[in-house]
This record gives sequence, structure tokens and C-alpha cells, in this order.
Amino acid sequence: MEPRHRVVILGGGFGGLYAAKALKHAPVQVTLLDRRNFHLFQPLLYQVATGSLSPGEIASPLRAVFRRQKNTEVLLGEAVDLDASGHRVLLADGAIDYDFLIVATGSADSYFGHDEWREYAPGLKSIEEATAIRHKILYAFEAAEREQDPEKRREWLTFVLAGGGPTGVELAGALGEIAHDTLRRDFRSIDPRDAVIYLVEGGPRVLPTYPPDLSAKAESSLDRLGVTVRTNTFVTGVDAEGVTVKTPAGNERIPARTVIWSAGVRASSFGRVLARRAGAELDKGGRVIVNPDLSVPGHPEIFVIGDLAHRDQDGKMLPGVSPVAIQGGGYVAKTIQKRLRGESAPDFRYRDMGNLAVIGRASAVADIGGLHLSGLVAWFIWLFVHLMNLVQFANRVLVFIQWGFLYLTYSRGARLITGEDQRVTAGAPEDVHRLVR
Amino acid sequence: MEPRHRVVILGGGFGGLYAAKALKHAPVQVTLLDRRNFHLFQPLLYQVATGSLSPGEIASPLRAVFRRQKNTEVLLGEAVDLDASGHRVLLADGAIDYDFLIVATGSADSYFGHDEWREYAPGLKSIEEATAIRHKILYAFEAAEREQDPEKRREWLTFVLAGGGPTGVELAGALGEIAHDTLRRDFRSIDPRDAVIYLVEGGPRVLPTYPPDLSAKAESSLDRLGVTVRTNTFVTGVDAEGVTVKTPAGNERIPARTVIWSAGVRASSFGRVLARRAGAELDKGGRVIVNPDLSVPGHPEIFVIGDLAHRDQDGKMLPGVSPVAIQGGGYVAKTIQKRLRGESAPDFRYRDMGNLAVIGRASAVADIGGLHLSGLVAWFIWLFVHLMNLVQFANRVLVFIQWGFLYLTYSRGARLITGEDQRVTAGAPEDVHRLVR
Repeated sequence: MEPRHRVVILGGGFGGLYAAKALKHAPVQVTLLDRRNFHLFQPLLYQVATGSLSPGEIASPLRAVFRRQKNTEVLLGEAVDLDASGHRVLLADGAIDYDFLIVATGSADSYFGHDEWREYAPGLKSIEEATAIRHKILYAFEAAEREQDPEKRREWLTFVLAGGGPTGVELAGALGEIAHDTLRRDFRSIDPRDAVIYLVEGGPRVLPTYPPDLSAKAESSLDRLGVTVRTNTFVTGVDAEGVTVKTPAGNERIPARTVIWSAGVRASSFGRVLARRAGAELDKGGRVIVNPDLSVPGHPEIFVIGDLAHRDQDGKMLPGVSPVAIQGGGYVAKTIQKRLRGESAPDFRYRDMGNLAVIGRASAVADIGGLHLSGLVAWFIWLFVHLMNLVQFANRVLVFIQWGFLYLTYSRGARLITGEDQRVTAGAPEDVHRLVR
Repeated sequence: MEPRHRVVILGGGFGGLYAAKALKHAPVQVTLLDRRNFHLFQPLLYQVATGSLSPGEIASPLRAVFRRQKNTEVLLGEAVDLDASGHRVLLADGAIDYDFLIVATGSADSYFGHDEWREYAPGLKSIEEATAIRHKILYAFEAAEREQDPEKRREWLTFVLAGGGPTGVELAGALGEIAHDTLRRDFRSIDPRDAVIYLVEGGPRVLPTYPPDLSAKAESSLDRLGVTVRTNTFVTGVDAEGVTVKTPAGNERIPARTVIWSAGVRASSFGRVLARRAGAELDKGGRVIVNPDLSVPGHPEIFVIGDLAHRDQDGKMLPGVSPVAIQGGGYVAKTIQKRLRGESAPDFRYRDMGNLAVIGRASAVADIGGLHLSGLVAWFIWLFVHLMNLVQFANRVLVFIQWGFLYLTYSRGARLITGEDQRVTAGAPEDVHRLVR
């Protein structure tokens, strides 16, 4: 028997996962490499950050996903370099040979050259960041409860969400609900409803990739949840005590103890490896400019999918959203199989199924095939789409039940302050610790 | 109106939680102080460590528990000192006055003077330790999958559980199931069933506080799950590559990459504060020797309950188990109310409801009022008791569903390697990272 062709996939996000799944019956040997042992359902990460879900509920162990897929092995590790002519991926501690390489390493938060902001304004890309944000949010209310100085208390109760895309909108909506419903009766010295939540967006409206009427709907939904939307407002500085912003009216300081970043993404660093070793061209966001079949020019055996790929369609770059990654993964899997059979493959074409963003309990906006929906209907669609997409059966049912409870009771079960800075005396300046009695 | 008496409770574990709950209708002002913002259902912590449950499922936010209990406030903070004559508890950053003080700060792991072992053999007391253990266990299988040297692979697949009490037995049973069922088909290079699991106990039998016939039942159940029980075996050293033990036959080295500690507990440090500031007498385990009404001799207004208290009953010290803490909390709450009404209170008397330890799927041992049960019946009792005791309604239902899935599918949904050392290249020696291909 001829040895099987080896397909190596870098990254177990949406792109890599769906590529590997689509190769299930292909006559190839698949190796899926990821730094983590689980696939993360990133669209629901904000629910971990806001205490509705536990990490285990939105993550699926990769080995469990591929348990019955005999042609696929999962490896924990990180690709650090590439030997493009030798067809080898180099790891910190070894190498893997490939016949086809699918690079699906995604994107990371971008602080526009101000990486020092990260310390004060975590992004929302990993489980660890989500639990860190949960810590920050819950701790802020605890600190406010203990603070006697009204001005400092106000700083603790001020939250700034930088970036008005779907993540920022979803976080803002969830924070509004936390302040107005979940925590309403939990404190004795403060009223959580006094919390001030700013959603800061540099452009003229939130959800800039959505139709304008849905942006307006989202803004009025957020307003009802007590969120103050600040458009045309750029963040120009972040420190431990707040942010500075540039608005049409001039510069402004917003004192705030909690700042969360979702204002920008940059391509993951393996793009630079592809540039150096395979001659790939990068756009200014670090994405790899790919051929119409998602391969790297000059390297038909290397494909780039998902957030790391720059692919124009009808004159516009495909957005960095999970459906693009999922469809890219399926397309590349098919293309590889066609090539092995000696057939030619058509170009990749993304089918836009629409956009969905949830704003809060029973509230969402949706743009599906030109149909603009909002409110409860959009929320039910959101619910259905996300549940169906959660990879594992057990997860799906549990998340559904969690949401049922959340919906009926306004409570949040996963409201734990855990991790390094779990003690109240750590992680905050001394002066906020005088006891309120 | 006369100002209400102030009851301050240190610690939101079982003792403190039940004391505060039992004061719901008392004419007092209650302050519950804890370093964490949640009550942890410690009996199920081993299920977080072994990937069956998520942290949020066994923890209840204290503020949510006491939301409707208007006479009770929750404060995040840590008591560091006591002004016993001034009736004040000192925090790092303030003070709280009390009329009655209930100390319920519990216990911590003891390494018998070898705190350097902690680095290699985490205990199972906190959420963070549970996720660290989960990381260690799952990572060991990943490392074994990548290791080519059979001897080193065997080290990765060897697990040593130090301490044959209920925690050790429960962990051993769960580890046996992970190796034999959960992960069975997940790897390509190793067979997880080759894992060697040692349960090491210094005494002559596991579950030393149980009747001997139930210890024997537990040992044979563990044997069926592939666990090797080593009794009369003392751990004399722990390092990164294994443990040394002393057995009747002499000293022995067990090479093992994963060691988990449940061999001893010591009282929490607030006992020493009580000794220094209130003249309390400590036993050699650091527990406070209390009066028959659980108060500190000479200080009728200070009570100590739960693991920190040393109280003899019928010539034997009450064990450090949750029912003792729960009953102590309820008793002290009643005693305070009686005293406020000018009545006298009877001595504390612990009613032993029996002992329960679970060994695996559908297997447990129970000693209930002298009735010795094992197998499925004991397991159902265990299931019922633990579900009924989980504090919050939502948690209860979710855990039940998780267990249903686990029972039906042998899978574990919370199998995430998260935290500081999440990358495969961190936390393990370089030599294990050569790639298996």
C-alpha cells in the first residue's frame, strides 16, 4: 500500500477544526497541531467573561472531537518555523513532515502599537482572558462596596469597553444586565445600577459591518440597558485609573477602573513565518494574501484559512468571522481531495449567511440575506444558531439549560473570582481598602 | 431602637455559611467575611480536578446565597489579627467590631514540615489547585503520547496519590476511570489503560476512619479500576520525577511525573491569632481547644467551629468533615440567640449521620448508623446526599445532568488544560518534547 499523503493543520480553531473534520473520509493522514488541548467556541467567550457560562461549557477537548476519526491525530504543540522546500513544520522540540499544510492560526488582539495598554485593558481571546475579565468586573463591584470616597467609588463603578464591534456590543449588553439585574440586590452599600458603562467606538456607529438601521437598533437596545454609547471616540491612552479619548469636541479623560479591549485584531505571528520562509506577501494587518484557492502564491501545497488569510471577494476583503474560517476549512479539505484525484478545484467563494449579534436577554440584531431582524426573533435565531454550532452534544444541552436559568432567574452561576489575584488585598491600590462600615 | 448585636463570621465554608444562614431571623447584624466571593462545595472538588465538573458548578457566589437575607452582609477580605478585649477583628486594611465572633477558617494541606513538596504534589483544597491538578493529569497523558523512550513514557503514565482518606480514594477511582474509560480511544501512540495509579497510605488500610469491612470493599473496587493500593507505605520524599516511600520491606523509589497530595491537613493560621490574642490553647495540629459550647475558654463571645476546632466527644476528637462544621454552625447560631434572650444553651453534641465515599461510576461505600453499604446502593445515597447539599438550585440541576452524561457516556466535558502553564512547551523538561512520529 502506498503511504498516505500527510495533511498537517496548524490551529484547532474554527478553520482548523472544520478542515480536519472534512478530511474524515479522505485517503490522507491528518495531524492537527494546537497549543491547547481544546477547541474554543469563541463566539460565547463573552458569556464566560460575564459569568453566565463556565469555561468547560464552551470548550471541547480536541481529542474527544476526533476520537472516532481514525485518520486524524491531535498533537499539543506550537509551530515556530517552517522549512517550505523540505515540507516540514518546525516545533520548539521537533518537526512534522507534510504534503499539504493548512495554516489556521487565527488572530490576536491589537493595541495599535501600544502593547503596554494590555495590562490595564485585557482582550477577549482566550479562556484565561475571559476569567481575568470576569475577575475584574466582579472585583470592581466588591471594591466599590468597600469604598467610602464617592469619587473613587464612581471610578470602580465605571466600565469602559473599547471597540464597538460585535464583541464590544455583546460585552456591553451583558455588563448592563449584570449591573441592573443580576447584582441588583447583592450589595448593601452600593446600588449596582449606579454603574456607568461606556461603549467607545472610533467610527460613527456601533457594529460598523452591519447595516446602519441595525446599528441604530443595537444602540437603542444598549441605551435601555444603561449603556452609554460613545461613537466617533478614539482611545488615545489606557492606564490603571482610566482612559483618555479623542472626540470631535476635544480630548477627554474617563476615570475608570475596568477597561476591556476589543478595538482591534492583528494576524497571528505565523504569517511572518510564511513571509520569511515561503515568500508570502502580507497585508498591513499581517494577513497572508492568498490565491483564489486560498493557497500561498508559489506554494500550492500551503493553504491559509480564517483570520490569518487575506482574500478579496467582489472587491472587499472577507471579514475575520467564524463562518469564513469554517467555509475555508471545508473548501480546502475538498480541494486537497480533488487534487489527489487529479481533478481541478474551483476558486473559494464565501457564502455570507448573515450577521448576528446579541445585546442582552431576549435582544439581538440579525442581518440574514438582506432581511434585518431585531429583538426577540433575532435573539431566538442567535440562540438556535449558536447551540447548533457548539461542537459537542453534552455542551450543547448544558449551555441551553444554563441559558434557561439565566433567562428565568436573571442569575449568573459562574460568578467566581478565581485565579492569581483572587484575594481582595491583591491587585488593587492600598487606598481603596479602607473598610466601609 | 436599640442597635442590634453584631455577629462577625470569619470564613464562608460549610461552618460559616450554615452559621450565617441559621441567623437569618435572629435580631442581629451579621457580617460574613471571606477571602473569596464564593462558597466552595469541597466534597466535589475532586470532580473538578478530574474533569467531570466545571468550577462554577460546585461554587456558589456568597452574595447570591445571602441576597434575600437582609440582616447579613458579605465582605471580601481576610482577617489578619484580633483585638480580643476591644472586640475587633483586624483586616489588612481596616477593622470590624463584633459582639459575637464565629471563627470558621477551616484547614489547609499539611506536608508534615516538608513544604517544598507542595511544588511537586499539589493538594486539593481550592478551585485553583483543582484546575492545576486537572492540568497535571491531562498533560501527563499528552506528554506520554509524545514520548518515545518507554521508560520515560512509563514515568508520565504513573500517578501517585499520597493519602488513603476519602479524597485520595475518590481521586484514585476517578483517575482509574479516566485511564480505562474516558481517554481509552483518544490517543494514537499510547494506550491510557497502561497508566499505573498508586494510592499510597501510611496506615494498614484505606479510609482509616471507616469500618474495616468497608475499607476492604473500597480496596477491591479500586483494584477493579486498575488502582494499586499500597498500605503501610509512608511518603518520605517528593520531587519532580517521583516519590520515595518507606515500606515494611524497606525504602523504595517510585518514578512518577504526577503526584497529588491528600495525606494531611493542618488547622488554618487564625488559630495562632486566637492563641496569641485570646489565650486560646491549641492542640498539636494547631486546632483551638474549645469549650463544650464551642466557645474559646475565657471568651464566651468567641466561637470556633469546623476544622479549626478541637472538640472531644465521648473521648474522641470530632473529625474534620463537613457535617461537623455544618452542625457546629447551626448550634452556635442557636446558642447566640438563646444568650441574647437570657437563656442558657446546652452543650454542642455532634450527631454522626455516617460516612460516605465514592469510588467511581456506580460504586461507593457508606456507613450509615452502623449499616454498611457498598456498590450501587451506596452510590445512589452518595448522589442524593451530595445533590441535596449543593447550595444553589441551578447548580444542583446542572451537576445532576453532568453526572447523567458522565454515567451514560463515560465522557468528561471539563477536560481543559488551562492556566499559567497551558502551553505544551512550558512546565515540563525539554527532553520529553521530542516528537513522536
